[in-house]
Amino acid sequence: MTLEAIRYRRGQLDILDQLLLPSQSVYISVSDTKDAWDAIKKMQVRGAPAIAIVGCLSLAVELIDTDFTNTDDVASYVASKLQYLVSARPTAVNMKEAADRYTSLVKKITLENSASVESVKKRMVEEFEQMFKDDVATNKAMGSYGADHILSKYKNKPVSILTHCNTGSLATAGYGTALGVIRKLHEMEKLSHAFCTETRPYNQGARLTAYELVYEKIPSTLVCDSMVSMVMKEKNVSAVVVGADRVVRNGDTANKIGTYQIAICAQYHNIPFYVACPTTTFDSNLATGKDIVIEERPHSEMTHVKGVQIAAEGINCFNPAFDVTPADLITGGIITEHGVFPADKIYVELKSRSILG
Amino acid sequence: MTLEAIRYRRGQLDILDQLLLPSQSVYISVSDTKDAWDAIKKMQVRGAPAIAIVGCLSLAVELIDTDFTNTDDVASYVASKLQYLVSARPTAVNMKEAADRYTSLVKKITLENSASVESVKKRMVEEFEQMFKDDVATNKAMGSYGADHILSKYKNKPVSILTHCNTGSLATAGYGTALGVIRKLHEMEKLSHAFCTETRPYNQGARLTAYELVYEKIPSTLVCDSMVSMVMKEKNVSAVVVGADRVVRNGDTANKIGTYQIAICAQYHNIPFYVACPTTTFDSNLATGKDIVIEERPHSEMTHVKGVQIAAEGINCFNPAFDVTPADLITGGIITEHGVFPADKIYVELKSRSILG
Repeated sequence: MTLEAIRYRRGQLDILDQLLLPSQSVYISVSDTKDAWDAIKKMQVRGAPAIAIVGCLSLAVELIDTDFTNTDDVASYVASKLQYLVSARPTAVNMKEAADRYTSLVKKITLENSASVESVKKRMVEEFEQMFKDDVATNKAMGSYGADHILSKYKNKPVSILTHCNTGSLATAGYGTALGVIRKLHEMEKLSHAFCTETRPYNQGARLTAYELVYEKIPSTLVCDSMVSMVMKEKNVSAVVVGADRVVRNGDTANKIGTYQIAICAQYHNIPFYVACPTTTFDSNLATGKDIVIEERPHSEMTHVKGVQIAAEGINCFNPAFDVTPADLITGGIITEHGVFPADKIYVELKSRSILG
Repeated sequence: MTLEAIRYRRGQLDILDQLLLPSQSVYISVSDTKDAWDAIKKMQVRGAPAIAIVGCLSLAVELIDTDFTNTDDVASYVASKLQYLVSARPTAVNMKEAADRYTSLVKKITLENSASVESVKKRMVEEFEQMFKDDVATNKAMGSYGADHILSKYKNKPVSILTHCNTGSLATAGYGTALGVIRKLHEMEKLSHAFCTETRPYNQGARLTAYELVYEKIPSTLVCDSMVSMVMKEKNVSAVVVGADRVVRNGDTANKIGTYQIAICAQYHNIPFYVACPTTTFDSNLATGKDIVIEERPHSEMTHVKGVQIAAEGINCFNPAFDVTPADLITGGIITEHGVFPADKIYVELKSRSILG
């Protein structure tokens, strides 16, 4: 069965403790927003969509067992708990966006004529549950569109996919973006092999993607980032599929460091290169990739692994978290929940469908 | 001053213990062939040229203090000790080649009319010392030819060089091959910056090249293998210089895994790509890179660092030690002790100079 990093049924939420991965798979109970705040702060859950979903679902669990004297109390309570959840990791934009959206919503529904304490509570619980379901549905739609697009290039015969970083169940509400495409191909029995890169320096590929692939018994191989070209030359890679942190108006894409290089190597070997991301990843404020500011991370991420020093003392490091892949290297296209689009047409296509404002 | 991994004066040999690098710089005394055998076996010295040189110099030290009754005794002693040294790491071809060569030589000189125990001992000590000097001289010649060739492309203005793996004092008798070119540019005050890759999975760049660069105060930066293209795009890299494990007749080159990918990225960014290696690296028995057998290394090199597990349990790995860079990607040329040659012309050029048989 599919790896579930977030297990929810009404009144109960459990999450896979990512701090213990890959060496141990332990689910921890999240029974209220305090538990969620702690789990987010300690990074037992990570990935911006996953953080927002765990936060909101913890509030859904808490709301059920909380008594209120009137609907205004419910609204104030929801608003203050959402703000509290934002404070666990203020830079995670999705939780902030969810807090703003659901604070407005709860105020609006308390104003409805038929509103009662129970109806407002129930409605908010359902909204949070819907958010969880919608994220998985978005990922599953991407998986299907991506799988079909790739298979159409190979006469529907089984394909091998190379991916980078972690874009799976552990980074989303479930299923994943790029890894969702691999999951879908595997479900269709159309995946001959998956290759995942280590993804230095933080090793999300070796730790998390490899964990998901082993968990689901997907035929797969871990390679170092330096081995991508040799794998492309020797191992019959059909397509590359990666995620994205941001897509800008001309189709340039920011993603985990190393993505740009994989795209260059894919072009050299005539292998289609895809980016899989929900349309919420589009940033229509920026014109080109040059406008994207790249975060630099601490040098210790490169010089140490789990506290063990691996690099020479005193060496200067360069540790950008992301790089930018120009639209012309995204030769397969951008896979979204609305279909697969050429990178240089993505903005026009989404505007014409009124998906972007 | 230049980092010395091998410190020798007549009667005394000390080597830098590479097992303790980069955390500690400790020289250990090698007073006879038994000490050398142990150091080679334990990998306190590594790199095929360095192993042969340490082995032969340990015999030079031992010979001085050993008494013999006649010249035949000297010859048998030298031959048996050389065979003993080969047995420490039988796959290191340079020690085997040196053993065969010096066994023949010592037999030949004992037959000379004027041969005495002292003259044979002295001659062999001088031969071993010459081998050490020659390797450094070869590397320095490569450094000069390489530096001049690169500078000629940039109107003699300071250049930035990116390199891969370790090809420095720690892998050779001293100075290094590709890292020798960087050393030479630095000596000439024509090096603006050096970039070295981590070189996963065994981290020779992070551990050894970074150590050498810090030691010599060469302005430098360590990057992950995945960051090469971003560095090429953003940091003004003038040329790439790497070493080689084998060069075949058509100019295809085997080198540390990851080299092929760097060459592809260099071509994409219009950055000249050089291979620096002595002419002893040429294998005229093989026609093309397809004929080179690539060694696969244990998966534990990828899944563990210093005994700490870094990858998910149960993941399958692919761990080739080398890859092949086709001649057409070696756009700068092949730097040898006889000059810099176009990769696709290297065999003809060395044949015409009677350097290859």
